[in-house]
Amino acid sequence: MSNLNKNLKKDLKKVESLMRRDLSKEPVVKDLYDYIFDKSGKKVRASISLICSHGMKQKQQDRIKLAAVIELLHTATLVHDDIIDNSDLRRGRQTVNVAWSNSHSVLIGDFIYSKAFMLMNEIGNFRVIDELSSATNKIAEGELMQLANKNNWGSSLQQLKKISYYKTGRLFEASAKTAAILSGKSNAFIENVSKASKLIGIVFQVRDDLLDYGISENDIGKPQMQDILEEKITYPLYFALKSSTKKDALKILNKLKKKDFHVDDISDFVSSSNAFNKCNLLIEGYSNEIDKCILSISNKEIRDQMLNLSDSLKYRHE
Amino acid sequence: MSNLNKNLKKDLKKVESLMRRDLSKEPVVKDLYDYIFDKSGKKVRASISLICSHGMKQKQQDRIKLAAVIELLHTATLVHDDIIDNSDLRRGRQTVNVAWSNSHSVLIGDFIYSKAFMLMNEIGNFRVIDELSSATNKIAEGELMQLANKNNWGSSLQQLKKISYYKTGRLFEASAKTAAILSGKSNAFIENVSKASKLIGIVFQVRDDLLDYGISENDIGKPQMQDILEEKITYPLYFALKSSTKKDALKILNKLKKKDFHVDDISDFVSSSNAFNKCNLLIEGYSNEIDKCILSISNKEIRDQMLNLSDSLKYRHE
Repeated sequence: MSNLNKNLKKDLKKVESLMRRDLSKEPVVKDLYDYIFDKSGKKVRASISLICSHGMKQKQQDRIKLAAVIELLHTATLVHDDIIDNSDLRRGRQTVNVAWSNSHSVLIGDFIYSKAFMLMNEIGNFRVIDELSSATNKIAEGELMQLANKNNWGSSLQQLKKISYYKTGRLFEASAKTAAILSGKSNAFIENVSKASKLIGIVFQVRDDLLDYGISENDIGKPQMQDILEEKITYPLYFALKSSTKKDALKILNKLKKKDFHVDDISDFVSSSNAFNKCNLLIEGYSNEIDKCILSISNKEIRDQMLNLSDSLKYRHE
Repeated sequence: MSNLNKNLKKDLKKVESLMRRDLSKEPVVKDLYDYIFDKSGKKVRASISLICSHGMKQKQQDRIKLAAVIELLHTATLVHDDIIDNSDLRRGRQTVNVAWSNSHSVLIGDFIYSKAFMLMNEIGNFRVIDELSSATNKIAEGELMQLANKNNWGSSLQQLKKISYYKTGRLFEASAKTAAILSGKSNAFIENVSKASKLIGIVFQVRDDLLDYGISENDIGKPQMQDILEEKITYPLYFALKSSTKKDALKILNKLKKKDFHVDDISDFVSSSNAFNKCNLLIEGYSNEIDKCILSISNKEIRDQMLNLSDSLKYRHE
């Protein structure tokens, strides 16, 4: 994200302060907010939103508000996800469920969700509310699908793609779409940036799955091989199973189903296959589609920033 | 609720079917929905909404939709509450967190919340969205306040009232207010039914707290003395501590703090005091205010139904 221009950085600062506006004076809410919003994330979704609403003539404040709403929704899903994944760490430190309790995570997540809807309503655009509530709904559905797949190691590529879209791509898509709608862009532009952002989100997820298999040396503040420990099949394992002999695949599947394995067994199985390569090919395929969408954007500034963002995420290390 | 007129019952049936409209075909979502919506609750909040939007000339469907949205929001909070309270039973059978898992409860709760916002948006009224998102926010805040008070037995009456308002009264209030707004009622009417419903909600909570102390013989499908087991002080214990000698109060507080007690100790302490009487006096005080608000409603049908509803809840046994 180092190439993003100064304006975007300035706008992201405004987004950050708006996310905490009108905060409750209740100590428990204040403490949780301080904790959750102390470490600010990459704000990828807010960035997409700000880039796609670039050039908006009126109501500049609504542009910032929309980006803040999107980050609030994303933050709420993260706080709830940490319960699902039983995570100890997020952005390098204890999650709310560990530092407080699962109950606190549930409630502060609900608090942040509803704050997002209150702020969203201030923007006063029904299409925006429809798109963002529907995206939030799909995120929950995607997470439920993944949960239902727990310890079920036979997912198809199509299922994995659907889950990645719902869990991650859908909010990326909505970030672009609502920003484009709000700023009065053309239908062609709306379609272009929505599709590009949806695919950027899916690529983001594939890369996330790869990072979990330790393909990067960097510390991403998250324990490695977490997905396997949560009994989730993701792209790397899918491709490794697909490309191995039937005998080897059955051996691994047997170990996984019986929960009788060391993570290194799985890690070795995957890294000695051509799975990482297959994942990167998948990323490249999506990247070609993404670039095609982005290159048909006529506004040079938006086009360049979208390309920058897409490229920086594709091979990110954290 | 036996006196509610036929129209209301018919409308509640429509509400019920609308709550399940456009449901996802994903098996995990379908299964959870079937389970959650199989046992239909009392639909008190939907009833308040339907009563207060009575006489609405246009867009009858929006009237039903609003009541459905309110019940969906309420259902989502129940599903999440069962995680907080670590409840085993709801409406006489296993909660989602027990029958599935906490993770399922978190996600299906989020799914239902966002469905509610999608449906709410279809009504297309910003005041309605603002009121309902703000009510949802207050519910989470009230629950967080209660959580922060866990094993803190020194709450003031003012704190208990604030929590009852946020946790319960706020959505009752919003049910009346949004229905009155949507159906184009006068400001005086909006204020009247909002205040009455807010207080009906608080009374509902006081009665709930009493029922937990076993004042009714009926099975309410919920284990008795649950609040004490969750280390929550509610109205009965508050009044019992307030009216006992300092020595007796300290003895009980000591046991509670050390978690060294049998629930019968607390139950005996409370029931042998004048706490139940004090709770009923509190209910009576609110009831006078409620009646005053309701009696100034000029529409006879709405007035009668609001009185019916308020009376039926005041001394309910389940």
